Amino acid sequence: MDYTLESGVDPLREAINNSLAQFVDRENEYLREIASELYPVADALKNFLLDSGKRFRPLFAAAGYVGSGGVLDTASINAIASIELVHVCALIHDDVMDGSDTRRGAPSIHRLFEKLHRNDSLKGSPEQFGVASAILLGDLALVWASKALHESGMPSQSLLRALPLYDEMRVELMAGQYLDVYEQALASESIERSLKVARFKSGKYSIERPLHFGASLSTGQNLLAYSGYGIPLGEAFQLRDDLLGVFGDPAQTGKPAGDDLREGKRTVLIAATLQRSTPDQKARINSLLGKQDLGISEVEELRAIITSSGALDFVEKMITDLTQESLAALETGTITSDAKSFLIHMAAVATKRSY
Amino acid sequence: MDYTLESGVDPLREAINNSLAQFVDRENEYLREIASELYPVADALKNFLLDSGKRFRPLFAAAGYVGSGGVLDTASINAIASIELVHVCALIHDDVMDGSDTRRGAPSIHRLFEKLHRNDSLKGSPEQFGVASAILLGDLALVWASKALHESGMPSQSLLRALPLYDEMRVELMAGQYLDVYEQALASESIERSLKVARFKSGKYSIERPLHFGASLSTGQNLLAYSGYGIPLGEAFQLRDDLLGVFGDPAQTGKPAGDDLREGKRTVLIAATLQRSTPDQKARINSLLGKQDLGISEVEELRAIITSSGALDFVEKMITDLTQESLAALETGTITSDAKSFLIHMAAVATKRSY
Repeated sequence: MDYTLESGVDPLREAINNSLAQFVDRENEYLREIASELYPVADALKNFLLDSGKRFRPLFAAAGYVGSGGVLDTASINAIASIELVHVCALIHDDVMDGSDTRRGAPSIHRLFEKLHRNDSLKGSPEQFGVASAILLGDLALVWASKALHESGMPSQSLLRALPLYDEMRVELMAGQYLDVYEQALASESIERSLKVARFKSGKYSIERPLHFGASLSTGQNLLAYSGYGIPLGEAFQLRDDLLGVFGDPAQTGKPAGDDLREGKRTVLIAATLQRSTPDQKARINSLLGKQDLGISEVEELRAIITSSGALDFVEKMITDLTQESLAALETGTITSDAKSFLIHMAAVATKRSY
Repeated sequence: MDYTLESGVDPLREAINNSLAQFVDRENEYLREIASELYPVADALKNFLLDSGKRFRPLFAAAGYVGSGGVLDTASINAIASIELVHVCALIHDDVMDGSDTRRGAPSIHRLFEKLHRNDSLKGSPEQFGVASAILLGDLALVWASKALHESGMPSQSLLRALPLYDEMRVELMAGQYLDVYEQALASESIERSLKVARFKSGKYSIERPLHFGASLSTGQNLLAYSGYGIPLGEAFQLRDDLLGVFGDPAQTGKPAGDDLREGKRTVLIAATLQRSTPDQKARINSLLGKQDLGISEVEELRAIITSSGALDFVEKMITDLTQESLAALETGTITSDAKSFLIHMAAVATKRSY
């Protein structure tokens, strides 16, 4: 069965979800054959993967594939969907590293297995069991990502051309994640440094590399144009995400209000605020940022400083400029017109203000 | 340059180490180009990988390759060496899950980054930074494993034949690791259950699958014979490892005396001891096993119970029988004679009594 970009995001997302569901069902059957004790692993991964998720990265990969001349069929959808499993690894491990209790409104994987440990009255520390399980489930998702790609049914030549990009994307992801963790620990106040992290975490990993990966599955054309589109858009997307982490509506983000403030995230928004603040405000920000039990009135107070400092407007302007730059790059290659329309739409989705 | 199995283990191990060193140097240069903050990541992974390690899995892969008709050259050594990086991921993550302070006599990766956090007076929890770093370094090693294989220089057809086995090996590894963690938490007293874990952790992952992987890089022949050799030998190897964890010499194992007892590992040895113990002894074992500050006299006491119960002899007999079964399987395929001699030698190394 063939798919097109012209029918829009939803049918394509459904095709991606179907591919993921089929893969994970097949793998889960295999896990259950190994041992019944693996049932919770199989179920947890399936639910985590399929319960929600915007499928941003596979959608960009699909656009990269079509934009470079590919025709979407079952095999290419399978290959494209596989990168969502890389993302699942990143999310599961991210939650362990941040100590996050929830993900997309449900318990994070390490909390889920902590609970399983408690419910079954197992021996040892429930927290340690939760962390160990989440590390292994993330690892498994990363291995599944490779497996899903290898088994996608793509012609050998496409597969062999795509593997180096797949590898590079994943190396950059891990490097970007480390830089992010390190940046938080450094409590950096530099906009430049925060932007660099944003570039790796989102610019390259979430948009540019999925586009490249998709392109490499077809003809390998338009890599430069995709970089020109992907890197600034990724930064804009990350900046929007940072704004949502502070100003976002919990009903939409699935996270408590001001969660990034509680986590003490060192974002471009925070760096820009610190640069524009009085010494008193600066001291206040540094004392509240990362406070585990930050109350709603303190969140409001920080929001007020961020807004009055001009940092909110500054970041909104950055998002607008970066998005413009991104869209201009779509005219530089030989990207097919259906992919171009799709990518213009995706740029709007990725940077949409929704608070 | 060509290599043979006839010159023995050491030159082959050196060739594997050279391949790993070249790969990791290339990757580290790339990491350093991304950001200077990645220097510690690059250094830590390089040291962890190259400081020591028996290279068991690559050696078995080399035997599988040659035994099925392959000729060892630079490309195949590269491909074979790549599975050591899978193992590095497993070790780094294992140390996080166990909370181990050391690995091969040096600080474990999470402790190393905990120290870096303290030395640089970074913000937040040093422990959390250590764990986050170790999770990411393990992930990176797992991605590097794929990359090293893809870039090995093997002909496309060999590579494409090897990928499914590579995937299956890694899925089994993660499943086996989870079963192990779960088994510890269950505090199981069943020999059968402990053996099942041993089968996945060592039998399949450490020996059978590396042999299969090597075979698939050449002609794909002798898979059944390799299973017949690998599964029982892997079990024997794991049983030997369990004995070393209780009776081993710290100078040789690089771990404190009786470390498995302190960790409360539920091994076949412990299960066999419990089955042969009086109710009093059983209660004593259960009260000491997993005691974090277990002293040397308590280690001695547990050792005495294990020995006097007959469990030590029972496990030694199992090792002998399994090794016999393993060697007999070498006669069932068309394994080349040089690979056969090499595998007989490896069986002796893997099950050698050294305490």
